[in-house]
Amino acid sequence: MNSPLYMTLKDEICEMIEWLASYGKTENGGVTRLLYTKEWYDAQQALKEKMETFGITTYFDDVGNLFGRLEGTEDREKVILTGSHVDTVIDGGKYDGAYGILASLLAAKTLFAKYGSPKKTIEVVSLCEEEGSRFPLAFWGSGNITGRYTIKDVQTYKDVNGVAFLDAMFRLGFGKGRYKTPQRTNIESFIEVHIEQGEVLEKSDKSVGIVSDIVGQKRWQIEVKGESNHAGTTPMNLRKDALKMASELIVAVSKLAVEKFPGLVATVGHIEAVPNVGNVIAGNVLFSLDIRHHQKEVLAAYCQSIMMYIDEISKREKMDILVAEAVDISPVHMDEQGTELLLNIASDKSISYKKMVSGAGHDSQVFGTYCPTSLIFVPSRDGISHSPKEYTKADDLENGIIMLMEMLYRAAY
Amino acid sequence: MNSPLYMTLKDEICEMIEWLASYGKTENGGVTRLLYTKEWYDAQQALKEKMETFGITTYFDDVGNLFGRLEGTEDREKVILTGSHVDTVIDGGKYDGAYGILASLLAAKTLFAKYGSPKKTIEVVSLCEEEGSRFPLAFWGSGNITGRYTIKDVQTYKDVNGVAFLDAMFRLGFGKGRYKTPQRTNIESFIEVHIEQGEVLEKSDKSVGIVSDIVGQKRWQIEVKGESNHAGTTPMNLRKDALKMASELIVAVSKLAVEKFPGLVATVGHIEAVPNVGNVIAGNVLFSLDIRHHQKEVLAAYCQSIMMYIDEISKREKMDILVAEAVDISPVHMDEQGTELLLNIASDKSISYKKMVSGAGHDSQVFGTYCPTSLIFVPSRDGISHSPKEYTKADDLENGIIMLMEMLYRAAY
Repeated sequence: MNSPLYMTLKDEICEMIEWLASYGKTENGGVTRLLYTKEWYDAQQALKEKMETFGITTYFDDVGNLFGRLEGTEDREKVILTGSHVDTVIDGGKYDGAYGILASLLAAKTLFAKYGSPKKTIEVVSLCEEEGSRFPLAFWGSGNITGRYTIKDVQTYKDVNGVAFLDAMFRLGFGKGRYKTPQRTNIESFIEVHIEQGEVLEKSDKSVGIVSDIVGQKRWQIEVKGESNHAGTTPMNLRKDALKMASELIVAVSKLAVEKFPGLVATVGHIEAVPNVGNVIAGNVLFSLDIRHHQKEVLAAYCQSIMMYIDEISKREKMDILVAEAVDISPVHMDEQGTELLLNIASDKSISYKKMVSGAGHDSQVFGTYCPTSLIFVPSRDGISHSPKEYTKADDLENGIIMLMEMLYRAAY
Repeated sequence: MNSPLYMTLKDEICEMIEWLASYGKTENGGVTRLLYTKEWYDAQQALKEKMETFGITTYFDDVGNLFGRLEGTEDREKVILTGSHVDTVIDGGKYDGAYGILASLLAAKTLFAKYGSPKKTIEVVSLCEEEGSRFPLAFWGSGNITGRYTIKDVQTYKDVNGVAFLDAMFRLGFGKGRYKTPQRTNIESFIEVHIEQGEVLEKSDKSVGIVSDIVGQKRWQIEVKGESNHAGTTPMNLRKDALKMASELIVAVSKLAVEKFPGLVATVGHIEAVPNVGNVIAGNVLFSLDIRHHQKEVLAAYCQSIMMYIDEISKREKMDILVAEAVDISPVHMDEQGTELLLNIASDKSISYKKMVSGAGHDSQVFGTYCPTSLIFVPSRDGISHSPKEYTKADDLENGIIMLMEMLYRAAY
C-alpha cells in the first residue's frame, strides 16, 4: 500500500477495499469470511494493526468485536460508535460490511489527522458477525453490544461441519472473559454506512441514500395440501391440484401488494412440489412468503388481508392450507434528528441523495432500538450483493465517507 | 392354488392376481418387474407353465412377448389377440397390466373348457414391456408386434445401472433370432382389459368402462427467464419475478382448459425455481405442461391458445419464455364396431358401464393404429395406480372377464 499522504480519499478507500478483500479471497474474486474462521480472524487482526498504524487505540470485546478508539477530550464516557460488520456470506462481495468498517476508519483517521482528538469519544467498530452465514443466528456482533444476545443463546449451535459455536469461539481465545464484556451502556449514537443491496439509488441516479427506516419483515411457510393423481385420467373437475392452488396464491400475494399496499414488497422465492413429476398432479406444495414494509400497521394490514384470502380460497377449493410463521421482525425507525442532519449535509455538499427505506436488515436495525442510529447507503451496481459481482463506484464510496465524516465532525468536534 | 374345478371365476382371478404378484413382490406389498430382469423372466416362465397346464400351446417371440394359442378349427391364419403387459413400474401395483393378461388367460381357458377349440385362432399375449420404467422407451412389446420398433431402436439405451438394453435382452436368450420374429401381419383384432388408473368409474359407480378413444398427449418444458434479486431491496415495480410469472401461466393453463376446452386435461406437475431461496426473487423457473384430449383438433386449438397467451404475457412483462416440446402423441380411436358390441354385451349382461375416454396410454394405443382394437376398463379404487395401493374389487374383475369372454366368443366361436 502506498503512503496515504499522496492519496485522495477516493483512491484510499478503493485500495483498502481490495486490501481487506484479500482476507478470505475466493477463486471467483469474491470473499468468504465466516465468523470465527482463520480468514475472519486474520481480517480482524489486520484491521487492528491498520488502526494502530493510524494512531488509533484498539481493543477487542469478548465476542470478537474490534474497536478503534479516538478518546474524547471533554466527554470520555459517552461514545459515538460507527462501523459495520467484517463477516461475509459464502462467496460474497468486497463491499457488504467491509465498506462500512473502512469508511468509518478512514473518516476517523482523516478527522484525527486534520483536527486532532475529538471532544466526544469516537469509536470505530468492526462488528464480528451480522450475516448468519456460519451459524443459524444473525447480528451476533451488534446483538452482544446492545444486550440482545449473550453466550447463553448459542450453546447448541453448530455449523454445517458439526463444529460447535462455542468451540469455534474458544479456539480463537474469545468467550472466556479474557476481553472486555461485550454489552455496553455508554453508546450515545451509532452511524453506519453500507451498500444499498438494491437498485433504487442506481435507477434514480443518486450517489447516497439517507435511510429513514429499516423495514420490518414477516416470513411464513405455506403448505397447500391437495391430492396427487394421474395427469391423464383425472378430469379437471375431480382434481385437488396443490400446484394450481399455490400458483393462485402466489399471483394474489403480488397483486395485493402492488394494488393495495404501495411500498410493501411481497416475495415467494422458494417452492417445492410433491411428487414434482410432469405427468402427476401435485399433491402437496410448500412455498415461502416474505413480506416487508417500514410500518408495522401496514405489515399487519397486509397480513390480515392475505390470511383472509388464504382462508377463503381454502374453503372454496376444499383444500387445507397450513400457514406457519418463520420470521417476525419489527420495522425500525432511524433517528429523525440524524436523518435531518444527513439531508442538510447532502444539500450543503451538493451530493445527490435520496431519502429512502432500507429493504434489507443491517446492524443499524439492532442499534436502532437501543440508541439514536443513522444509516447511509451508497449504490450497488445492478442492485447486486452477496456475490463476487458486488460493486460500487469510487465516487459514491467517497461520498459515503464524506457524509459520515461530516456527521462525526458535527457530533464529536 | 386350489383346483380351479371348485372355484368361481371371481375367486380364480383374485387368486391368480396374488399368484402373479408373487413374482417381483416388494417390501411394501407392491410389485417390481422391470423388463429383462430375473423377476420379469420368472413371471413370463410361470405364465408359460400356467398356460400349458390349461392345455394352451405356448411360444415366445424374439423380444420376449409370450403367447398362448388356441388354434382355430376353421381359420388358422388370422389371429384374435388379447392380453396386456407383464412389466411394472418400480414398486407398482398388482393389477396394472397383470390383470389384463390373467383376464385374457381365464377367458380363453373358460371358453376352451366349455366350448372346445374356437373357429378362429385366439392368442393370449403377455406383452414384454409397456411402462418404459427400466429403459427410456415404452410399448416395446406391442411396438415390436406392430412393426413400430425393432432392435435397431434400442442400440444405445442403458438402464440407471449402466446395463445396456441389448445386453439385458441377450442374457435371457432373446434378441438373437432363436425365437419367432416379433413383427406380425396376421392379427385381425386386439382386445385388452385394464384397470382404469383414474376414478371416473368409481365416482360414477360403474363396473366397467368401454373405451371409445385413447387421448393424445402433448408435453412441453417451459422456462421463464426473469431476474434474481434481493426480496427486501427490490421494489415491486423493478422486479422480473420468474416465479410470479410462472404462477400466472399455471393458473391460465388450468383456467383455459376448464372454461374453453371441456374434456381436455392440462397439468403442471413439475416446477423448479432458481435459486429457490425464500428471500431471493426467483430468476428462473422451469415447469412442465401436460395436455391430453382424444381429438387432435382440440389439442391443437388449445395449444394455439396457450402459446398465444405465453407470447402475449412474455411481451407484456418483458421476460423471455422458452417453450420446448417434449412429447407429441396422437389420439387413437378404438374400433367402433367393437365398441358397439361391448355396449350391447354390457346391456345384455346387466353389467353397469360407462362409455369413456382413456386418459392414460395403453398397449391398445399402439394396436389401435394397426388393427381394430377394443379396450375395457375396470375401476381403480381412489383412482390409484402405479402404487402398492392399487386395488379393484373382485366383482369388477369378474365383470371385466365376462365382457372379454363374450367378445372373444362372438368373434371366434
